[in-house]
Amino acid sequence: MTSSTPVDSHNEGVEISSPPTGHVIEEVVDATRRIMASVLHTGRDNPHLARIRDTLREIADTLDGHSPDLDSRLVEMWAGTGPTRHSPVTGIDNPIAPPVQLRGYGDGSISGETTLGLPYQGPPAKVHGGVSALILDHTLGVANDFAGQRGMTKELTVRYHHVAPLFEPLTVSARQVSRQGREIHTTGEISTADGQVCVSAEGLFIDRYLPRPRAD
Amino acid sequence: MTSSTPVDSHNEGVEISSPPTGHVIEEVVDATRRIMASVLHTGRDNPHLARIRDTLREIADTLDGHSPDLDSRLVEMWAGTGPTRHSPVTGIDNPIAPPVQLRGYGDGSISGETTLGLPYQGPPAKVHGGVSALILDHTLGVANDFAGQRGMTKELTVRYHHVAPLFEPLTVSARQVSRQGREIHTTGEISTADGQVCVSAEGLFIDRYLPRPRAD
Repeated sequence: MTSSTPVDSHNEGVEISSPPTGHVIEEVVDATRRIMASVLHTGRDNPHLARIRDTLREIADTLDGHSPDLDSRLVEMWAGTGPTRHSPVTGIDNPIAPPVQLRGYGDGSISGETTLGLPYQGPPAKVHGGVSALILDHTLGVANDFAGQRGMTKELTVRYHHVAPLFEPLTVSARQVSRQGREIHTTGEISTADGQVCVSAEGLFIDRYLPRPRAD
Repeated sequence: MTSSTPVDSHNEGVEISSPPTGHVIEEVVDATRRIMASVLHTGRDNPHLARIRDTLREIADTLDGHSPDLDSRLVEMWAGTGPTRHSPVTGIDNPIAPPVQLRGYGDGSISGETTLGLPYQGPPAKVHGGVSALILDHTLGVANDFAGQRGMTKELTVRYHHVAPLFEPLTVSARQVSRQGREIHTTGEISTADGQVCVSAEGLFIDRYLPRPRAD
């Protein structure tokens, strides 16, 4: 850990994801998440689907009609140097993200809780193995950030011990374990509330990252 | 491959994902996908966000107000024995799925194309490494299905060769390479249209699966 890493001396951890700001966009994203789950839950017999389709299309048109061009938006969404708001795992502004909100601790570890619903299903009422891989890849990357060293995944190995349940709180945790030159080794896991490890991962990261887009 | 595996003699492949049926639910899901991308694209300055939030909440309420209980819905969504419609990768009924539509070929391989937008972003304008892991885990599983043998992931190793671009067609492919007892080895990759391999994966699968929920 570098000396600039924030450390909480009371062991309650520090927020290292982008926290909610109360902006209306977060409520729009939350409502979108509700629809993503509800449309899977409702199935094909809901008598209101045609009207809902029309309204959703109108909303998409309105959003698109008042949006910047893509290059400008990329500059805007990557502004600053800290955590972003759009990641598919922790991003409070990304409907795909559960989102997992991560905290960092004085021992260099990070962790967060999440509960996953129907959109993340693999086996019946269980978390999709690939979703666990997505969450762990991202969380290992955040652990590297927290240790003061960004990196890009070179190799990720994910091991499945027990199927993780949907609809129940899961704990996601990670920590950087070693660095040798530009190679970074990081591990993490997803566990149930009673401490059973469902999925574990180890990643080899390379100390490089792509520059953020900036305005000309 | 078992003798029951469908094989296309003209090498155009056979559809092995659940194909579109033209049902209105698919249009609702497509419109939801549009909103998921558009809300990331529009950012925080769109003047219509408060009205959009209210309308989205009403839609979620309407969907929830006309939905079966969860256990009944799980039985319904897992009906039959073929490919499902709700997977987070190939599921035409799941807003999280791009969806990747896969075809199977006479040599035992499967492949499909997909183009990923802002919700799947890792580095600027690039595919998130964890999203590639999610897509590959699922596609390797479908390759096992196509080879006549379901399996659950025991270990998945994902290697990152080049960052995969957003907004451009990517090819996802996989094939089962060996079986020894209950152990199945399967490989796959994600490539750009000009054939550059961005991400490769190998998986160890165990020949077991969880029973589908059925009505009492």
